[in-house]
Amino acid sequence: MDRFSTERDVVPLLGDWAARPGPLYRSLAGALTRAVHDGALAPGDRLPAERRLARTLGVSRATVVAAYEELRGGGLLVSRQGSGTRIAPDLRVRPPAADGRVPGGTATTIFQRLIDGPGELISMAVAAGGAVPQLADVLRELVRDDLDDLLADHGYHPGGLPALRVAIAAHLTGTGLPTAPEEVLVTTGAHQGLVLVTQLYLAPGATVVVESPNWPGCLDVFRSAGARLVTVPLDDEGPSVAALGAVLRERAPALLYLMPTYHNPTGLLMSATRRRRIAELAAVHGVPVLEDNASMTYHSESGDAPPPLAAYAPPGAEMLSLGSLAKAVWGGLRIGWVRGPAEIVQRLARRKVLADIASPVLDQALAARLLPRLEEILAVRSGELRRRLDHIDGLLRERLPSWRWRRPDGGGALWVELPGVNAVAFAQVAARYGVDVVPGAAMDPDGGHHSHLRLPYTFPPETLDELVHRLARAWAEFERHGPVPAVRVIV
Amino acid sequence: MDRFSTERDVVPLLGDWAARPGPLYRSLAGALTRAVHDGALAPGDRLPAERRLARTLGVSRATVVAAYEELRGGGLLVSRQGSGTRIAPDLRVRPPAADGRVPGGTATTIFQRLIDGPGELISMAVAAGGAVPQLADVLRELVRDDLDDLLADHGYHPGGLPALRVAIAAHLTGTGLPTAPEEVLVTTGAHQGLVLVTQLYLAPGATVVVESPNWPGCLDVFRSAGARLVTVPLDDEGPSVAALGAVLRERAPALLYLMPTYHNPTGLLMSATRRRRIAELAAVHGVPVLEDNASMTYHSESGDAPPPLAAYAPPGAEMLSLGSLAKAVWGGLRIGWVRGPAEIVQRLARRKVLADIASPVLDQALAARLLPRLEEILAVRSGELRRRLDHIDGLLRERLPSWRWRRPDGGGALWVELPGVNAVAFAQVAARYGVDVVPGAAMDPDGGHHSHLRLPYTFPPETLDELVHRLARAWAEFERHGPVPAVRVIV
Repeated sequence: MDRFSTERDVVPLLGDWAARPGPLYRSLAGALTRAVHDGALAPGDRLPAERRLARTLGVSRATVVAAYEELRGGGLLVSRQGSGTRIAPDLRVRPPAADGRVPGGTATTIFQRLIDGPGELISMAVAAGGAVPQLADVLRELVRDDLDDLLADHGYHPGGLPALRVAIAAHLTGTGLPTAPEEVLVTTGAHQGLVLVTQLYLAPGATVVVESPNWPGCLDVFRSAGARLVTVPLDDEGPSVAALGAVLRERAPALLYLMPTYHNPTGLLMSATRRRRIAELAAVHGVPVLEDNASMTYHSESGDAPPPLAAYAPPGAEMLSLGSLAKAVWGGLRIGWVRGPAEIVQRLARRKVLADIASPVLDQALAARLLPRLEEILAVRSGELRRRLDHIDGLLRERLPSWRWRRPDGGGALWVELPGVNAVAFAQVAARYGVDVVPGAAMDPDGGHHSHLRLPYTFPPETLDELVHRLARAWAEFERHGPVPAVRVIV
Repeated sequence: MDRFSTERDVVPLLGDWAARPGPLYRSLAGALTRAVHDGALAPGDRLPAERRLARTLGVSRATVVAAYEELRGGGLLVSRQGSGTRIAPDLRVRPPAADGRVPGGTATTIFQRLIDGPGELISMAVAAGGAVPQLADVLRELVRDDLDDLLADHGYHPGGLPALRVAIAAHLTGTGLPTAPEEVLVTTGAHQGLVLVTQLYLAPGATVVVESPNWPGCLDVFRSAGARLVTVPLDDEGPSVAALGAVLRERAPALLYLMPTYHNPTGLLMSATRRRRIAELAAVHGVPVLEDNASMTYHSESGDAPPPLAAYAPPGAEMLSLGSLAKAVWGGLRIGWVRGPAEIVQRLARRKVLADIASPVLDQALAARLLPRLEEILAVRSGELRRRLDHIDGLLRERLPSWRWRRPDGGGALWVELPGVNAVAFAQVAARYGVDVVPGAAMDPDGGHHSHLRLPYTFPPETLDELVHRLARAWAEFERHGPVPAVRVIV
């Protein structure tokens, strides 16, 4: 089969083309040229037909025709009757070394925003703000009280700074999951914990069961290990027990990956009953479980969540839990952890050494001082986020009354359903109005949820005002074009 | 072929057994038991014959006999005439999930020290001390001057904090390698830079050319990617040109990995002439080069090194350079970098996102403030390290006159040759005297350099006194046993 024969494959490679200044056809031609020089498109690769690409990009067919024409003139593209438009097969480009993207992955486009740095766009890819004031407080305390001690040793603690392992263990015990320090590995954010667990549990070709929708950054970690993703749908209490039971029975997965406490992107809280049921199911089938509670220390609607999934594990079950201070304190601190059996933590520590030897010491010392104050931090932060959620809720009802969403139980984003249109196409229009939208299809390994988008509400009220204003203008423009039908693209 | 039929395979799995209290045979039996429960040894694995293991461990045959006997009594081992001693094939142990070790790797034993945390041993695995005083200075300045600005944004900078990329570029330009900020990726130590480059350049089965000896932590990164290691020997100016030319011609490697500025473990400085010649060779053969200058900002004998290898690259050559503040400032800061063409840095940034999204912000801000003062920091640090080198040099001449070493050009360790004995065996005796020795064979992918060991001189004088005292006592004991001949073990 040809590489890149559909618009679904090509659109993610075009990045923020629509947000660039100048005529649209020029921007599109520029984006295709960059994709070739970047190695994302290779000589001989087929491009989508003009009409289909135009529809997906939310532009007129004339724009795509003009872009292709310009590139044919420059020798980058060739078109032939019957075989469509291709990157010129004899084009001389730098031999395509690996370009760092994950084959089949959907997160690079999102993270490229971070790599490129800030622009005029309001990016919905990053639901994160500045640090809580307590971080500066503990930094001043640390400088005052125990800097000399801290800087005296060699600074390499692959398992984590002992004081932080103690503090994390105490924190987890407080959430209803009794934990000893040696059951904790400190990682560079929960994300690195996910990477290390993946390295330990997933050989190429292994099956990992994930909820759908899901966060693309996590899915790409599994994909990069060559794992096969099998999805289970969510209902109001968490992953469907019937679907999960069938998958565990039939697919013998190597890992079950779940986000019980404020699932990303739906904001769903898994019920206590469901936790018990799923922990039992996994144990019966002997499948290790990785629960990702990175969003646990975020906004919470009820202020009260059941204990982590691992607290429901029957004897002999293998459960690992990820956590992080990124949501409660600051992303720039990069402090996360894996909690699991001490012997598994030892093995993960070996992978940690292989990845980066150890995490920085200062940030760990700050985290150790912050964790005992977490409840107080969360009370303030959660109140603020609840007000922001109320605010965007009101704005959307007023300005975008045809959009639908369920009020999340916690987390930092709304999971919005657009009325019967493809969010990938809307994202292209939104980019022209200065909003970087993450469409639902990027969050579903099966390519479903195409009418959804993830809408973070963690921004300050004035940014939320501007965000919804831009979305509403983009939506009006999109509707004028005639909404693109929500056809599921089969690749 | 049987797994673990030789002592060379088994000894690294035994860890610090010889340093544990109690009778030696009990310690050995305990270490074997732990290796089984840890998954490092599996049911059915064959153990070395008693006499051979005893010789390699530097203990009497009776010790090994007693240990095996105890384990047979407990059902862990079985022995049969003709097929030797094995882990009981029907032993019920936890299904051996991946244990985090690198197949064929030699670094886990070294790093396990860091994972286990400090003990009574003087570990020669870690040539690192506390932070330079300037780190506390810049931290106080940062808290005073620009904490609010720093904590205001979302904190995710996959390429690196912009101010730090600028500072690293200025630093490299100052070493004779003109560099722009977008040619710099910030990493968690030089080690993570090595991991990211490995991910981008080395597919399973690819060949990477390395100097021999080499640092096991780096070799294990290549091994974990499934790469094949091909070695080139060193002469007084650097890697042998004749050997390198032959390897590049015959093996078409995917990467050439070199440590030009204070090679680890030999402390060799590659001459300017050799740099030019090797850069040309690599360009002629179209082989990308990764130079690891993590030891560049360490002790330097002459105070003056040629510019980095990349400064000698002919047009079109692909050169990447690793650097770090671990040696000059502190390992606990975990700030390193990769310098390369901007487009490669972009690709590496994508792998950085996949690894841990971004490095912590505070440490990066500190590094940005430290780099402009690096020359002043190095002047002091290098003077101190020169005095320590003089000190250990004198101690060794006096206490261990049969040992041989070349005075290093820089770095933090001596590369010592023992008089015709196997350093693996001596390491076992040294452990009983409280020194953790890294033997040369762990640093040579071909299993050579078996008479060598790496001896860090970065410790304070009183630790160096105690270190050499313990080594001298261990050496006396070792010589009493009759030195073990330096037989190259063929696996």
